[in-house]
Amino acid sequence: MPLRIDAVGISQLRHPIVVRDRALSKQETVAEISMSVDLAAEQRGAHLSRFLEVLDASGGELTMRTAGAMLDDLRRRLGASTATIETAFPYFIEKRAPVTGARGLLDVGCRFTFSAVADDRTFSAEVAVPVTTLCPCSQAVSDYGAHNQRCLVTISIAHPLGDDPADDEVVWIEELVELAERHASAPIYPTLKREDERFVTMQAFDHPVFVEDLVRGVARELQVDKRMSAFSVEAASQESIHNHAAFARVVSP
Amino acid sequence: MPLRIDAVGISQLRHPIVVRDRALSKQETVAEISMSVDLAAEQRGAHLSRFLEVLDASGGELTMRTAGAMLDDLRRRLGASTATIETAFPYFIEKRAPVTGARGLLDVGCRFTFSAVADDRTFSAEVAVPVTTLCPCSQAVSDYGAHNQRCLVTISIAHPLGDDPADDEVVWIEELVELAERHASAPIYPTLKREDERFVTMQAFDHPVFVEDLVRGVARELQVDKRMSAFSVEAASQESIHNHAAFARVVSP
Amino acid sequence: MPLRIDAVGISQLRHPIVVRDRALSKQETVAEISMSVDLAAEQRGAHLSRFLEVLDASGGELTMRTAGAMLDDLRRRLGASTATIETAFPYFIEKRAPVTGARGLLDVGCRFTFSAVADDRTFSAEVAVPVTTLCPCSQAVSDYGAHNQRCLVTISIAHPLGDDPADDEVVWIEELVELAERHASAPIYPTLKREDERFVTMQAFDHPVFVEDLVRGVARELQVDKRMSAFSVEAASQESIHNHAAFARVVSP
Amino acid sequence: MPLRIDAVGISQLRHPIVVRDRALSKQETVAEISMSVDLAAEQRGAHLSRFLEVLDASGGELTMRTAGAMLDDLRRRLGASTATIETAFPYFIEKRAPVTGARGLLDVGCRFTFSAVADDRTFSAEVAVPVTTLCPCSQAVSDYGAHNQRCLVTISIAHPLGDDPADDEVVWIEELVELAERHASAPIYPTLKREDERFVTMQAFDHPVFVEDLVRGVARELQVDKRMSAFSVEAASQESIHNHAAFARVVSP
Repeated sequence: MPLRIDAVGISQLRHPIVVRDRALSKQETVAEISMSVDLAAEQRGAHLSRFLEVLDASGGELTMRTAGAMLDDLRRRLGASTATIETAFPYFIEKRAPVTGARGLLDVGCRFTFSAVADDRTFSAEVAVPVTTLCPCSQAVSDYGAHNQRCLVTISIAHPLGDDPADDEVVWIEELVELAERHASAPIYPTLKREDERFVTMQAFDHPVFVEDLVRGVARELQVDKRMSAFSVEAASQESIHNHAAFARVVSP
Repeated sequence: MPLRIDAVGISQLRHPIVVRDRALSKQETVAEISMSVDLAAEQRGAHLSRFLEVLDASGGELTMRTAGAMLDDLRRRLGASTATIETAFPYFIEKRAPVTGARGLLDVGCRFTFSAVADDRTFSAEVAVPVTTLCPCSQAVSDYGAHNQRCLVTISIAHPLGDDPADDEVVWIEELVELAERHASAPIYPTLKREDERFVTMQAFDHPVFVEDLVRGVARELQVDKRMSAFSVEAASQESIHNHAAFARVVSP
Repeated sequence: MPLRIDAVGISQLRHPIVVRDRALSKQETVAEISMSVDLAAEQRGAHLSRFLEVLDASGGELTMRTAGAMLDDLRRRLGASTATIETAFPYFIEKRAPVTGARGLLDVGCRFTFSAVADDRTFSAEVAVPVTTLCPCSQAVSDYGAHNQRCLVTISIAHPLGDDPADDEVVWIEELVELAERHASAPIYPTLKREDERFVTMQAFDHPVFVEDLVRGVARELQVDKRMSAFSVEAASQESIHNHAAFARVVSP
Repeated sequence: MPLRIDAVGISQLRHPIVVRDRALSKQETVAEISMSVDLAAEQRGAHLSRFLEVLDASGGELTMRTAGAMLDDLRRRLGASTATIETAFPYFIEKRAPVTGARGLLDVGCRFTFSAVADDRTFSAEVAVPVTTLCPCSQAVSDYGAHNQRCLVTISIAHPLGDDPADDEVVWIEELVELAERHASAPIYPTLKREDERFVTMQAFDHPVFVEDLVRGVARELQVDKRMSAFSVEAASQESIHNHAAFARVVSP
């Protein structure tokens, strides 16, 4: 009895891509890409070189405006009913230090997944935002000081992928970064001068959060955001007093 | 409105563990461990040091015979309704070369997940088996030779976790390794002498498989295995003619 | 007694950079960057924010034409006698399939190190080129077939870094890639159609090499190249019949 | 003209090993191993299966007492003049929380390199110790608080490898861990109860150190230690206010 295959394709492909930022300009970056389709029970194998051809034809542009056509192209050229394109890449955001305004680029790890089941398309984005967390317990039990550390907040969202989404329907990476930062003890910056360091040190001390507090804060905002159909948020603090992480996760019902 | 948290705990913890092999003897290895519970809406935070205490009390033994008690212990000590223990570790299997019988240890990457939702417990295992795949297309179109490569076959299975499973209900790592090897072009061995190398070279040439063939073969055997309630199988060939992988995946309905 | 520090700086910084290719056009990629200076015995610490300022002022251009000025800038702003900039990044080369000419981009892992000891500057480049190796022993002992696999050839070269190197003094990444490919069983391509696959399969079978042969071939060419003052070459085959690599390395005297 | 090869062998081999701790008992762990020999100009290739045989014959025990014989064995069986065995593994140290004495295991990343040039043998050890660093600058400029983070202190030492070193000639991993901890803001512990957390929070605040201070402190102790012939020390703080690391390094003259 022949068996349908859920996904067949290529993975671990490193390739330059172009994404769009909130200011609507293009950002060139490098992605690890995976592309796949399903395979009907009566077909022995997929023509893997066609995945590369579809990617090459796209000019490396992998945005919500182009992905729909790529998914269609994959399904058509491979004779498949489903298609998925997954791309993981660093994204850079210009940050200004809070007091001096010193400039620098913050890298944020992103993963975009575009998928189609027949003509039904979905987009999901995962953004991993580095922030500072300062431990409320450490602060409460100590006469002075409090342990703090870098914490990675990973926010995932999903929504249907329309043909030409209006700009105000799009959930921008920049928004998810700001959302994570709003519920952290303090944001992280590439460049900080002395006055900035004073500012963020005291900002963190004034806003102690457990990973539990952080994910609850983010989840509450995501729950009321009409643009997404599903979300999850995880925070993992690289504990400065341990050699392991403390984490919390909320997944939308 | 307070929010329930799906999972809170520790992760990225490196710790020695003890697992059992099919011969019923113990194997000492090193794992990366994650442990978590849920957190009710009215609780602000979990006592993270208790996770370490539960682990320490277990003596590092993480098997189907001990995990049930650990899950209970976590739920009780943390006042939680759900608990999960995840452990990723290398596992070693003694292999004998096919002709000379030369001995060596093959490492297999494993991930065990034990979880409880109230008293309902589940076990899932993921085993990543390195094998050889030789490309049928390359063989068919060429006058001689055929490209081949290392391929990682990742088999995941899940079933309810009883209190004291009988040995014949257990799905052993060794079985999943043999299952992957049965559908590959050839198994992989740590030590091969000249006669063995001749044997596996010709064995692979005589059994060309696409990743599609490989996952179908494995899936067909898993479909009729009564011991598991769900499975998936993925094969990813580290193509010797490309710098990316070719992969296929079947997931149980 | 105060102690001089050999290197102090920043590391694990992810940042977009611009490099130049042989066709003299610019390539945008993403690097992991480390920058450091020495610290005199009488200074307690270095001003780490200045590293970011130097990088920001460079506009991310990290080439032999710009690195000299950056090293000077680092030494001057930090009051140091030595400076080092290290950058690891994927670099993309357009490859055409050998028969059909099908296009695609091959990613090559690179590491550039620019360093200055007073006004004495050195450049070193490390390029990791994926190729195919087909085992001569497997071929010789078997009636048909031969195991083959992806092999990573890492070539490192070093030479003095002048102020404005002429184009014919520069060792281009493309040259090192071609050098590795010349001594492999076959090059690796992103996109291969059926006829191409036949070509590379038979090309590899016609050019079996041990990792020992490969590094000797590369080393012999590097020995007589007047442009470099030191080199090393390592080849590591991801053995398709084992779960470990076979490697060989030659270092210039 | 044939070319001598500096190193040929196997790498990326995962294998269980046994090491000895300061209490002279054995610790079972899992290593990534590399083994190599040189190859004379007139020999085409090395017999790679012999590396596995030497490892298998050792029973996986890789200590200063056994490595000399393994190096001899490698040189003899491969007809080589030099041999190197490199092994990277996690090592576990029992730690007691500073106030409550709560128990747990701290993992420390180690790398042992045993090498022989003819009968001249060398041992080198690299130990990566996680500690806490609290920033003196952040503390000085702020009215309250100070940023702190996990910092990895990597200490490398080398000395001649004798046939049967006396216990007091051996540099134990535990000593290098204590050395790193002595110059950090605070050690790191697996398990900390509330009172312990208060203790380490205030201990760190009372001992602010830059990475520069940390490496100078460690280097000063290593400089006067007669047991080693060379050393280096690097500290890399995973800055909680940045997404990059701050590092410093001292290398013995």
